[in-house]
Amino acid sequence: MKILNVSSGAVGAYFCGRLAQKGADVAVTVRSDRELIAAEGFEIKSIAGDFIFKPQAVLSSAAEYQESADYLVLTSKVLPDADMVELVRPAVRPNTVIVLIQNGIGIEDALARAFPENEILSAIAYIGVSRIAPGKLEHKGAGKLIIGKFGGGESAACKALCEMFEAAGVPAEYTLDIAFYRWKKLLWNVPFNALSVLGGGLLTGEMTDNGTTETLCKELMKEVIAVARANRVDLPDSMVEENIEYTRNFPPYKTSMLIDCENSRPLEVDAIVGRVVANAQAHNMAVPHLETLYAILKAFDTHRKNCGVYNK
Amino acid sequence: MKILNVSSGAVGAYFCGRLAQKGADVAVTVRSDRELIAAEGFEIKSIAGDFIFKPQAVLSSAAEYQESADYLVLTSKVLPDADMVELVRPAVRPNTVIVLIQNGIGIEDALARAFPENEILSAIAYIGVSRIAPGKLEHKGAGKLIIGKFGGGESAACKALCEMFEAAGVPAEYTLDIAFYRWKKLLWNVPFNALSVLGGGLLTGEMTDNGTTETLCKELMKEVIAVARANRVDLPDSMVEENIEYTRNFPPYKTSMLIDCENSRPLEVDAIVGRVVANAQAHNMAVPHLETLYAILKAFDTHRKNCGVYNK
Repeated sequence: MKILNVSSGAVGAYFCGRLAQKGADVAVTVRSDRELIAAEGFEIKSIAGDFIFKPQAVLSSAAEYQESADYLVLTSKVLPDADMVELVRPAVRPNTVIVLIQNGIGIEDALARAFPENEILSAIAYIGVSRIAPGKLEHKGAGKLIIGKFGGGESAACKALCEMFEAAGVPAEYTLDIAFYRWKKLLWNVPFNALSVLGGGLLTGEMTDNGTTETLCKELMKEVIAVARANRVDLPDSMVEENIEYTRNFPPYKTSMLIDCENSRPLEVDAIVGRVVANAQAHNMAVPHLETLYAILKAFDTHRKNCGVYNK
Repeated sequence: MKILNVSSGAVGAYFCGRLAQKGADVAVTVRSDRELIAAEGFEIKSIAGDFIFKPQAVLSSAAEYQESADYLVLTSKVLPDADMVELVRPAVRPNTVIVLIQNGIGIEDALARAFPENEILSAIAYIGVSRIAPGKLEHKGAGKLIIGKFGGGESAACKALCEMFEAAGVPAEYTLDIAFYRWKKLLWNVPFNALSVLGGGLLTGEMTDNGTTETLCKELMKEVIAVARANRVDLPDSMVEENIEYTRNFPPYKTSMLIDCENSRPLEVDAIVGRVVANAQAHNMAVPHLETLYAILKAFDTHRKNCGVYNK
């Protein structure tokens, strides 16, 4: 089984590394530390067992990949100036299945248009993993995937991929309705990721405070549910309270967007919040809480970009 | 003419210092640097002419004031845990006129209830002045007051105070309708102060960007205008565009809330945003943009407080 992991960061290296442990032939492209990783591999400290992941090849870009991957796993961040189509194009062969393990909604559309003959799988990751030093990762929480065919329905390739992950010790749920899970994750991500950053570094527990922050989280979630329904994805209303309770009962932690923020990395503002707002506007829906959140988060991210924070 | 300036910071020391220059007998209470200011006075660098303001007395609190002030000028910040009534009470005599030079709305109510026999004047300051070192202030922009009787209408004491300021070189407009000017200033303060902080340090020019930030400023101003109208204060709709144009055409600068933020001082979240939201709720009005802005700003301020930023 040949796999190419494009933009292998903490998430990609963990999941694809597990597949490599079970014998898959995994190459990666990386944005930085190429020589170090080529020499020593990824050193992964994990609650599911520490391991070293030595890819078959460590490349600078997909253009360097000469083989034909069965699965091309894309794990780049979803940022406005990153063209995901061009990122993968040089390595897409006629039979390559493209797998996205990314946040946000609407992220598959451009790839589906660009590669109409290729099957596209969409995956949601629940995992707490981060880069602690060049080539060194720490996996501290969860570590699960939900994978389905983009657009919904059965897929033999998806089933096979889930089985491979399961065999490699990664819980991987095969779903006929990935859109549901993508919106479900977004429902949590929108309020908690955005507010953790805009609140100046809030832990999850500070947002389930029984006060104005929690109320805002709920209002934002209600608007996301309404937009999801306009997209024929029916998230039950009870998810609002469930998300609050789940988050309140979990030990306080930093969201992924807060971790990006603290590490001077660009934020997935558009993938996580902007596209929901744009989608609502396309449906002529009023989402004033989301609109306000988006405008502030966008201003925050743009200001940091203009100040050179992301070039450090 | 006897004047007591309670909580004399940059704004109070500038305006009352100008009165002292013209012969008024001005005592002050200060929160810090008492001995330095008693010995050397306030050293004020000003676009309207540098001067030293040596108060007749520099006190730690109003309780130390043994005289009877004609005007008690309160220039404290408006914070939830600052009880303005108790701050001034020990120095309020039967004939003392209480003058508030402060931001926000609803700030006069508690004083009016506590001192029903005293006249209360409400003033709006347009000034760029800040503390640059202990006892040292820098006055860089504007320097104008608008003063009126709380509740509206004629006031001989207010007229006399405006004349004193004018004689001292401080433009001071006497108004019969101070509520109008208070809401008018709030209309600018709500979007620009709050977003300058939440955007991570935005200058005014970054908020009149012809983009989502500017659109949000306008939506927020529309909601403030609606709430003002519920309070029988009619701000014309044209003020929305006027505020944007005025701000766009002014050299970019830091708002007062951003300066507070950068100096690790508590933010006037409730006086400037919270009370508008509460007032809207009391009128059963939906103000979702303001609500979102308030909840985020409150979370930001609370987080800083809990992290000890304000104790430094």
